[in-house]
Amino acid sequence: MTDYDPGNIFARILRNEVPSARVYEDDEFVAFKDIAPKAPVHILVIPRHEGTTAPSALLESDAGWMGRMVVAATKIARAEGLDERGYRLVMNSGPDAHQEVQHIHLHILGGKSLDSMA
Amino acid sequence: MTDYDPGNIFARILRNEVPSARVYEDDEFVAFKDIAPKAPVHILVIPRHEGTTAPSALLESDAGWMGRMVVAATKIARAEGLDERGYRLVMNSGPDAHQEVQHIHLHILGGKSLDSMA
Repeated sequence: MTDYDPGNIFARILRNEVPSARVYEDDEFVAFKDIAPKAPVHILVIPRHEGTTAPSALLESDAGWMGRMVVAATKIARAEGLDERGYRLVMNSGPDAHQEVQHIHLHILGGKSLDSMA
Repeated sequence: MTDYDPGNIFARILRNEVPSARVYEDDEFVAFKDIAPKAPVHILVIPRHEGTTAPSALLESDAGWMGRMVVAATKIARAEGLDERGYRLVMNSGPDAHQEVQHIHLHILGGKSLDSMA
């Protein structure tokens, strides 16, 4: 397992060292637009809590905030007007999924008829 | 929002009215192989709890089991030997994401270098 690097780009976004187009934030999570969108709506949701690199690093004790992060993503999707036409929630873990930043994150994708998920 | 139909295929799998290749089950969740796999490993994780059609139907009060479902998926991925090479977790909601069964479910995809997620 990779150690968490506090210099990763999402940690720097959380510290406002790097700009981002934020669309939502609360005490636990921040959401912002992906800078290389794969769909008309492509938003990333991340926990403010540092330390969790990837889905494969999740512990039983992370279930609470993980569930709240999924529910937050559904609220963001609703606010983006995606409920009726639909959307996809994705979490990538490791090289086969091309996970690019080692701070766990959830993608919200929508605004078009989406392609295959794999 | 679509009402939950207790005759949907996943509810029938839960009742053993339809066969499935189960790879995991506990008090809350059942996981089985997708019958039309999009990757060498393609597993679906579903809650035993009926009533939630889609991510867009999640309530704040669903955060607890939702988090446990994500953590269960990471344990299943580990048992399938996917931790090192990686995997993708996907939840589709509605027509743009081609959600086919109106019983909320989480896809685990791995065993190859995955394509674009949208």
